[in-house]
Amino acid sequence: MEEIRSERLRRLEGGLKVFSMRVGIAKLGAIASAVLIEYCLDELAIREDLETFVVSSGSKIRIDVLDELERREFDLKIITCPNAEKFLRPNMISGRVIVITDKASKDWLESIEWGYIVVKADSMIGARREFLDPTEMVLYNSDLLRVLAVTGVFRLIQFEIDRALKEDYLPRVVVDYGKALEFSGFSNPYARAKAMASYIIAETISKITHRACFIERDTEKFITLCATAHELMRIAGILADSAREIEKSNDTVLRTPHSRSGEILKKVGLYDLLM
Amino acid sequence: MEEIRSERLRRLEGGLKVFSMRVGIAKLGAIASAVLIEYCLDELAIREDLETFVVSSGSKIRIDVLDELERREFDLKIITCPNAEKFLRPNMISGRVIVITDKASKDWLESIEWGYIVVKADSMIGARREFLDPTEMVLYNSDLLRVLAVTGVFRLIQFEIDRALKEDYLPRVVVDYGKALEFSGFSNPYARAKAMASYIIAETISKITHRACFIERDTEKFITLCATAHELMRIAGILADSAREIEKSNDTVLRTPHSRSGEILKKVGLYDLLM
Amino acid sequence: MEEIRSERLRRLEGGLKVFSMRVGIAKLGAIASAVLIEYCLDELAIREDLETFVVSSGSKIRIDVLDELERREFDLKIITCPNAEKFLRPNMISGRVIVITDKASKDWLESIEWGYIVVKADSMIGARREFLDPTEMVLYNSDLLRVLAVTGVFRLIQFEIDRALKEDYLPRVVVDYGKALEFSGFSNPYARAKAMASYIIAETISKITHRACFIERDTEKFITLCATAHELMRIAGILADSAREIEKSNDTVLRTPHSRSGEILKKVGLYDLLM
Amino acid sequence: MEEIRSERLRRLEGGLKVFSMRVGIAKLGAIASAVLIEYCLDELAIREDLETFVVSSGSKIRIDVLDELERREFDLKIITCPNAEKFLRPNMISGRVIVITDKASKDWLESIEWGYIVVKADSMIGARREFLDPTEMVLYNSDLLRVLAVTGVFRLIQFEIDRALKEDYLPRVVVDYGKALEFSGFSNPYARAKAMASYIIAETISKITHRACFIERDTEKFITLCATAHELMRIAGILADSAREIEKSNDTVLRTPHSRSGEILKKVGLYDLLM
Amino acid sequence: MEEIRSERLRRLEGGLKVFSMRVGIAKLGAIASAVLIEYCLDELAIREDLETFVVSSGSKIRIDVLDELERREFDLKIITCPNAEKFLRPNMISGRVIVITDKASKDWLESIEWGYIVVKADSMIGARREFLDPTEMVLYNSDLLRVLAVTGVFRLIQFEIDRALKEDYLPRVVVDYGKALEFSGFSNPYARAKAMASYIIAETISKITHRACFIERDTEKFITLCATAHELMRIAGILADSAREIEKSNDTVLRTPHSRSGEILKKVGLYDLLM
Amino acid sequence: MEEIRSERLRRLEGGLKVFSMRVGIAKLGAIASAVLIEYCLDELAIREDLETFVVSSGSKIRIDVLDELERREFDLKIITCPNAEKFLRPNMISGRVIVITDKASKDWLESIEWGYIVVKADSMIGARREFLDPTEMVLYNSDLLRVLAVTGVFRLIQFEIDRALKEDYLPRVVVDYGKALEFSGFSNPYARAKAMASYIIAETISKITHRACFIERDTEKFITLCATAHELMRIAGILADSAREIEKSNDTVLRTPHSRSGEILKKVGLYDLLM
Repeated sequence: MEEIRSERLRRLEGGLKVFSMRVGIAKLGAIASAVLIEYCLDELAIREDLETFVVSSGSKIRIDVLDELERREFDLKIITCPNAEKFLRPNMISGRVIVITDKASKDWLESIEWGYIVVKADSMIGARREFLDPTEMVLYNSDLLRVLAVTGVFRLIQFEIDRALKEDYLPRVVVDYGKALEFSGFSNPYARAKAMASYIIAETISKITHRACFIERDTEKFITLCATAHELMRIAGILADSAREIEKSNDTVLRTPHSRSGEILKKVGLYDLLM
Repeated sequence: MEEIRSERLRRLEGGLKVFSMRVGIAKLGAIASAVLIEYCLDELAIREDLETFVVSSGSKIRIDVLDELERREFDLKIITCPNAEKFLRPNMISGRVIVITDKASKDWLESIEWGYIVVKADSMIGARREFLDPTEMVLYNSDLLRVLAVTGVFRLIQFEIDRALKEDYLPRVVVDYGKALEFSGFSNPYARAKAMASYIIAETISKITHRACFIERDTEKFITLCATAHELMRIAGILADSAREIEKSNDTVLRTPHSRSGEILKKVGLYDLLM
Repeated sequence: MEEIRSERLRRLEGGLKVFSMRVGIAKLGAIASAVLIEYCLDELAIREDLETFVVSSGSKIRIDVLDELERREFDLKIITCPNAEKFLRPNMISGRVIVITDKASKDWLESIEWGYIVVKADSMIGARREFLDPTEMVLYNSDLLRVLAVTGVFRLIQFEIDRALKEDYLPRVVVDYGKALEFSGFSNPYARAKAMASYIIAETISKITHRACFIERDTEKFITLCATAHELMRIAGILADSAREIEKSNDTVLRTPHSRSGEILKKVGLYDLLM
Repeated sequence: MEEIRSERLRRLEGGLKVFSMRVGIAKLGAIASAVLIEYCLDELAIREDLETFVVSSGSKIRIDVLDELERREFDLKIITCPNAEKFLRPNMISGRVIVITDKASKDWLESIEWGYIVVKADSMIGARREFLDPTEMVLYNSDLLRVLAVTGVFRLIQFEIDRALKEDYLPRVVVDYGKALEFSGFSNPYARAKAMASYIIAETISKITHRACFIERDTEKFITLCATAHELMRIAGILADSAREIEKSNDTVLRTPHSRSGEILKKVGLYDLLM
Repeated sequence: MEEIRSERLRRLEGGLKVFSMRVGIAKLGAIASAVLIEYCLDELAIREDLETFVVSSGSKIRIDVLDELERREFDLKIITCPNAEKFLRPNMISGRVIVITDKASKDWLESIEWGYIVVKADSMIGARREFLDPTEMVLYNSDLLRVLAVTGVFRLIQFEIDRALKEDYLPRVVVDYGKALEFSGFSNPYARAKAMASYIIAETISKITHRACFIERDTEKFITLCATAHELMRIAGILADSAREIEKSNDTVLRTPHSRSGEILKKVGLYDLLM
Repeated sequence: MEEIRSERLRRLEGGLKVFSMRVGIAKLGAIASAVLIEYCLDELAIREDLETFVVSSGSKIRIDVLDELERREFDLKIITCPNAEKFLRPNMISGRVIVITDKASKDWLESIEWGYIVVKADSMIGARREFLDPTEMVLYNSDLLRVLAVTGVFRLIQFEIDRALKEDYLPRVVVDYGKALEFSGFSNPYARAKAMASYIIAETISKITHRACFIERDTEKFITLCATAHELMRIAGILADSAREIEKSNDTVLRTPHSRSGEILKKVGLYDLLM
């Protein structure tokens, strides 16, 4: 792995841009952090230094999807998977790998050589047939995406992956509310507190959905737990939104778009120049 | 194409469930309707009658991704692509195909043999570097997903694709506010009106983002147009949410989950039995 | 016309204030821009340089009301009328005239000698007996007034009419969202974007009410369209309000009251002095 | 007066509809109850039994405007005027007259022969130059119109004037929160309570604006009082809106439109038939 | 203890109402469950069967306050205390005692003979001088009171204490979200889910405030944690409020006032009779 | 009285802190200003210069509770009581006394030698059995506490009592909206106006509850009045909250915590140092 990398790095350091970086993404199952990840790497579809290839087996986790990455060449492989510890084994994939998941034990994280981003707020959905249909599923993800976006998770993912592309670095980050907020870019302290509160609520939800999906047997009770979980995510989304609205009212929204050449630019005032 | 299909249909009609249906999805570029589409087909990850395979080139539209579908066998292929007319040609893909896109001319739609679902509310994002970064991109999609979910678009997609899987049928649907609302399942007429209003706002946005991205040259002006577009989507999302909240307050939320065997079940009262 | 005007102008320029300006207003039918227009010219009832005379036939458009203006002498005549093109002919009224209406063709506007202010957001109400009663009518106007006020339309009307009173000038303005916002006085860019979004929603409504009132025959369908239109205006009003609230939170609300002598004064901070 | 009336009544009772009723309206100064009153009498512009003629001197109260009514013939004259007691004298106007005002002493009301509708919630605006400009003026009226509409005031006006047109009757009504609510048509008791609360807040405002306009000399203090008054009306409007939203969520909004022949029809469910 | 009780019970059972029950309440420190507890026992100040005596040392926990209860005679003693396990010892108080606290270990609860009500949502305030002042303290309690009220905690306290007054019973209840909701009386399942979500958020807060008050040393960090905790309680309050608003919109708010003779009555519809 | 005081004052002035001040609080009946008063004096439970002793008879007003204060020694006695004029007589209590109540006649206030704080917004609850139960009671107090906190009442109480502890001073304050706002510490003028509006609404409520509780006999009517009163307090609370949110968005929330030695410290920016 290091060799492939160092070759590319060498060329980069030598000022050569022979070809762009190739990122392969395998999405196993569904986590909100993964849903828009390829777009987070090139949100304007203008990067000349990056190619992405995404493959997925949909909601069901099918490990053979990883073969699609294996049989191609990538500078970086990203695997997104709920409860990664349960599904992924070291030998399943080679090369420079970042796993993005919703939870994992400390032991497992320490045991793997991959990079990882564990997004604790990316709580499991209320996956009970009596409650969840495609519409409800989308709404939950909508709320969760809002929470992750406002609290800085997608910026963290953006920055960590970019660093992994440009340096000999793989992130090993467990994203709790403190970690996320480092990337959120809030100016107003109450907005930051609201965003942190939003993250904390989102993180709490997995306990409820776990009980709803795996422990509670009584139909009315697990339905209520599912509904409760989704109400939690809805209010977390509303709270996140209110945090961002404060920054907007002060014209202090941090923006970090990619340039054509793949640098991360920065601006705060809406009419400021990008830097 | 018809032969492959009819063979499978024959088996289905003969009561045989030899193997499950295979759906191949190629996502070109980014439209919100596509983001969670594979999960809409199996939101609980329990369907025994369906396998999905998804491939994408990320935000950049790369036609060669279609080859990934071509070289495999599928009972149905779904291609999602913004402004499909501009990027897709009939000879690029074979078999039973449904294109999901945000806009297309009547002529083009009549000229193609594929099925299609044109989601008019799936308006283009404010894709200006001075405005759009990964965080803003996710927030726009979060709002848009909410609008599409509440107004019935994902149920429409669910139903149309399910029908295409089970019958010799390909949808040819342009989803305007009237069409979407047929699938939204609202009981309260004011909630339905709110949802329709939400859809109409979302649909209006493409005019603003088109002007922001392709016509307006003055930086401050196109930034303002981008911001306006995203405010429109945000308020459309809030309006959609308020519509669903009314249904919740009346316990009349329609739910249509998939069963294990892939049927679409139905319930309204939260504690009702699925039917 | 020019003669009468020039006489008065001459006196004004000569520093004489022999008598105050007389404005005659004929309101044909109902548009929201017209409802409070006489008060917009003298919101504190203290101007010593202005007299207004208003006449109307109520909701029904009766052209003979114009005679009430014709038989008196005015320095400026204002005619408010929905769809003015359909109802007004050049020979119906003499003197210096400004027409305020909700829509008109470019051709017609170019053909008339009058001044005009076309307020595109002043969309037609959902005028179906099965939906509209006096209460609903007032609520729609309440929402629309809010949109027009916050987005700058009434300030535009104030400034344009004041200029027409003080100069040899008649406004020829089609008020789209860009034009309105020039007068809105927003400091915060996101507030401005919200206001623009509000105007755009309001403008969209006329398409829905037109279909509801003149095209759709099915009762349930046109009722739904009316309700949708009014939900659109309600949310546009809420959005406008949120824009102004941002300015209030920053103490940057622009205020432009009339002085006793009819000048337009200006202030921003609530405790600032008028200038 | 009685003779004119009785002749018309006789004809009506005899089943003759020789000509429609004529209502003359003189608006002196500005009260919100008056702003849309002519449209409340014929909100759809379809009544064949009614003609209205409206005349006003704008924000300044000019009694000579009444002459415009006197020199014409009307079946009913309506005079709208803030603080009517101060400006109107019995001999100023003849015939069947209804005065609509915001406040009046019991003594004065008992002394006049006219009909009257005193709308206590129609509180004076914060008419200080340092605070009020056309935009602020419109926003206050927008909020107040909402309060009056939702709490039943415009329906009361509609019903009382209609009765005065069809019977030998002149209303003598002081509209406090109890009276207004009789006409509001709420089904849900909490919605009714919210509407009542809204009316009470609106009614309270006149004390604040009176102090702001006539008593307080300190600039910062009277500005604050004006701002407070307008915040009160804004929140009263929001509260009224929330009351109506409850009725909408239950599909129990009362609607009382006029028919073509001038009857007051009625419906509750949005898709119900008019009766 | 049992003797005193049984004497009173005997008299009660014998139909005698010789004298009313006496409840002594000692409030140690501050928990929201305790703030209004005496009023929860006699919210209308009309009960003829009950006398309460309350004593407190304010925010500081002073055990000697218990002596004030000891030296008087009560049928029931209630001690409210944060983290009761830390401050209370069995020998400190005699008679029939109910402890109300925010947390306690299972072991301790099993070890004591007192009744207890452990309200897990009654989370500690953000008690850092750099953050908390009297105003902030009241606001936190306001939010927390709303959560406890809506989620059923005060009804639970009402019922449990009433039962302890009327039967030979002492409550031994740990109030988690499930327990609270049993008493909340919701009819609408989504309202119940919102209330449960509210309770869960409130319960989560103690972890944040614990860290803020006892672990985090960095000033800016513990201030942020305090602010986060209070934002969590604020949003929990808003969520609880929205749950109750749904019940109001359906006219299904459960009410359980005390009668003059101390029975707990019941009604649901606002205009229903008490039963 | 003066002697006791001056002795303590002398010691204080001599720089001696022999023992802390003792405040005795008797709560008669229920007013919101009193509910958390002991915690307002030592919100962090860290003051070394103050001891509080609180005694109450619960919701019923029992004058003998005052004896509990009389038989102990205090540097200051605080009696909280609704409608104090009706229940308190000068001879009931000795020493330095501050009465906190919701209303009192000017005459009575002038007649007493005690200090007083009359909180006009502390309006009576809707105390009708058909409406009020413990849950509703708590919610009303939650709303009222929010109003009082945001509008500055608790800071006023804090400052006045602190001054009474440190100087030879007893407050004689009637808290109307102007007085309260002096202590609210708002920076933004619109936030101040919202808070003032909130106070005014709260103050208005007592007229409604008085009528509901003592005048109106018709059950449905007094229930409606109670519900109206509580809706008024709810919206007053929401308005107060929105005022504080503005200050938070500007990071200008005034905080005045007590130091360990009992001084009132001050800060504005959330991360500012206390001074």
